[in-house]
Amino acid sequence: MFKNVIGLIVEYNPFHNGHLHHIQEIDRLFEDNIKIAVMSGDFVQRGEPSLINKFEKTKIALSQGIDIVIELPTFYSTQSAEIFAKGSVNLLNKLSCSHIVFGSESNDLEKLKKIATVSLTKEFELSLKELLAEGFSYPTAFSKALFDEKLGSNDILALEYLKAIRDTDSKIEAYCIKREKTGYYDDEKDNFSSATYIRKILLDCNEKKEDKLNKIKNLVPEFSYKILEENFGVFSCLSDFYDLIKYNIIKNYLELKNIQDLEVGLENRLYKYSLENLSFEDFFDEVLTKRITISRLQRILLHSLFGLTKTITEKIKNKVPFVKILGFSERGQEYLRYLKKIDNYNERKILTSNRNLKEILNKEEIELFNFNELCSQIYRIKSSYINIGYPIIKN
Amino acid sequence: MFKNVIGLIVEYNPFHNGHLHHIQEIDRLFEDNIKIAVMSGDFVQRGEPSLINKFEKTKIALSQGIDIVIELPTFYSTQSAEIFAKGSVNLLNKLSCSHIVFGSESNDLEKLKKIATVSLTKEFELSLKELLAEGFSYPTAFSKALFDEKLGSNDILALEYLKAIRDTDSKIEAYCIKREKTGYYDDEKDNFSSATYIRKILLDCNEKKEDKLNKIKNLVPEFSYKILEENFGVFSCLSDFYDLIKYNIIKNYLELKNIQDLEVGLENRLYKYSLENLSFEDFFDEVLTKRITISRLQRILLHSLFGLTKTITEKIKNKVPFVKILGFSERGQEYLRYLKKIDNYNERKILTSNRNLKEILNKEEIELFNFNELCSQIYRIKSSYINIGYPIIKN
Repeated sequence: MFKNVIGLIVEYNPFHNGHLHHIQEIDRLFEDNIKIAVMSGDFVQRGEPSLINKFEKTKIALSQGIDIVIELPTFYSTQSAEIFAKGSVNLLNKLSCSHIVFGSESNDLEKLKKIATVSLTKEFELSLKELLAEGFSYPTAFSKALFDEKLGSNDILALEYLKAIRDTDSKIEAYCIKREKTGYYDDEKDNFSSATYIRKILLDCNEKKEDKLNKIKNLVPEFSYKILEENFGVFSCLSDFYDLIKYNIIKNYLELKNIQDLEVGLENRLYKYSLENLSFEDFFDEVLTKRITISRLQRILLHSLFGLTKTITEKIKNKVPFVKILGFSERGQEYLRYLKKIDNYNERKILTSNRNLKEILNKEEIELFNFNELCSQIYRIKSSYINIGYPIIKN
Repeated sequence: MFKNVIGLIVEYNPFHNGHLHHIQEIDRLFEDNIKIAVMSGDFVQRGEPSLINKFEKTKIALSQGIDIVIELPTFYSTQSAEIFAKGSVNLLNKLSCSHIVFGSESNDLEKLKKIATVSLTKEFELSLKELLAEGFSYPTAFSKALFDEKLGSNDILALEYLKAIRDTDSKIEAYCIKREKTGYYDDEKDNFSSATYIRKILLDCNEKKEDKLNKIKNLVPEFSYKILEENFGVFSCLSDFYDLIKYNIIKNYLELKNIQDLEVGLENRLYKYSLENLSFEDFFDEVLTKRITISRLQRILLHSLFGLTKTITEKIKNKVPFVKILGFSERGQEYLRYLKKIDNYNERKILTSNRNLKEILNKEEIELFNFNELCSQIYRIKSSYINIGYPIIKN
């Protein structure tokens, strides 16, 4: 009944014409498909809050043709590429996707698969370790260990998806779609631009609302524009959380060493500069070292804010505790009903409301569910939104 | 050599003409005296941050004739009257004060002493307990248990000082000075007004800086005015800390039950309303019940913010871990030198810098010292000031 069940891994931060193009390509390539997007919730992989909240993003995704939106919980979405990818692929596994379709700068699936194989070898691992010990940041070391193979940011994620598919013995078939090399930081080009560029415009303090909105109008689909316009004024960015981050670092200094991604010694720098009444920018510059990338430091700050520890990471790394459905279309609902009829439905841990939580999840899974809620509650301290409940149903 | 060593217990939030009058009365009554003030640091007994920080307050106190300023650590200053008073009296004991001089509306020391005696009896305690169980707030129940004896706010504190003197077997002699019944909330009267009235003016959002300053100019000594003018724009109030308080309640919900003064069940209300994106005023109104006073709820909020637990309170209730000297005059310095020469100096735990901390304090005392520093660090997240170090020396 459902042949082409296509999985996408997205952040939609915010949804732009490139994202729409990706969906249109899937429709061109896979007839009679159903599209399932695993989407970062209120926090994203660069270690930042989502510009607009997860419910608003879900509305946009559904309006643009996605059939089912699954929340990528914060304990995956703010992690390094490896854990982000593994969590995402595992969620798509839970919904029995047939394909995963991702963007790629190289658009060379065979090459990416080869690199994935190489990067899983002991030799590569050793070489990477040595380069990291020499003080290179992770992406630089990774590239050097591949004999200076330069990978785009989408290719790096693609690599992790391929590794995750292999690692989880998944039956999902990988497929890539050419992503034009705008890269993350480029400006617009024929109404295509990166999400980073759009965020940069919208968060720019020196411009008027009208000018900002005019600049992005042609870069995003109409409905995405409408939602962004409605949410103007409550856009969220990392520096909004600076005082909460500082407070937590000062108060819970001794617990920092358990925080995911935090390397030994960094807790002292975090503590020291938290006491110095610096601006967020100065604080960040002081704490940053050559060994860590900006994204990684941002992630560490968020992990400290949430209390996302190494222990929690161990719990979620290899298995997903729940599949929270943020929204679906009619066709998406049909697919969910279909899944109910086939084997092992209970093992899928699919949540379409909070009502049967205690029947579907065990104690540890409920704790992890609550942890993800906590992250959204923290988001809402700084960017208030109404917790409208899930799923959002598109008629 | 030092006959009249006069102890004062103050908050100076901010220092006004009434405070100056108190000092002048002491000079009139006690010849050749030395004045030692135990002063609330960055947080005060009403459960609020101090309008201006402790170093600024110390400068004012020294300029107005105080010889030694001792910091009343936050683990005393935001507690109920009983613990506030006991900590303060114990600090004055450590400096071998001969007298304690406090303001009193009734100005009837004998009556206050009698009430203190009564209030220490088992019968009174039982009666108070019953009234509290009936749902009366502490001050109301206290007054009812005294057969509706109405006590002013200064008299209530005076009572606690008298109880503390008895409780600590102190040799300090109590002395009271008539405090005109302006009460806390009255307006100005012949250039005398309450600190509450002055704060109300300075924190009023609807008035211009110039108008505010003009209104208080005649109510405070010249130097106090100068400091307030300099600190205009960084005045601190409880609602500044609302997002930090909410964040901590949401994140550390399970630890709330250990928070000092928090009664069973209140943690649920705190948690529930922290999730509702209310304004601080609405949040406060929702959490408040008839059983607790506004001050008490404010204290509870601060205690949760600091992590001031029942365990910490037990550690400091009956003995002071250190005597931190925020500032002194030449005469104050002479007195401190004199103390060094007499017996048991090490037991006084007097700190005039952080240098010899580890020699003077044991491990637990250092932890408590650091806890008090933590509270000031939290203050500085919202009202940045430079930690200029202590003591401030007045030449």
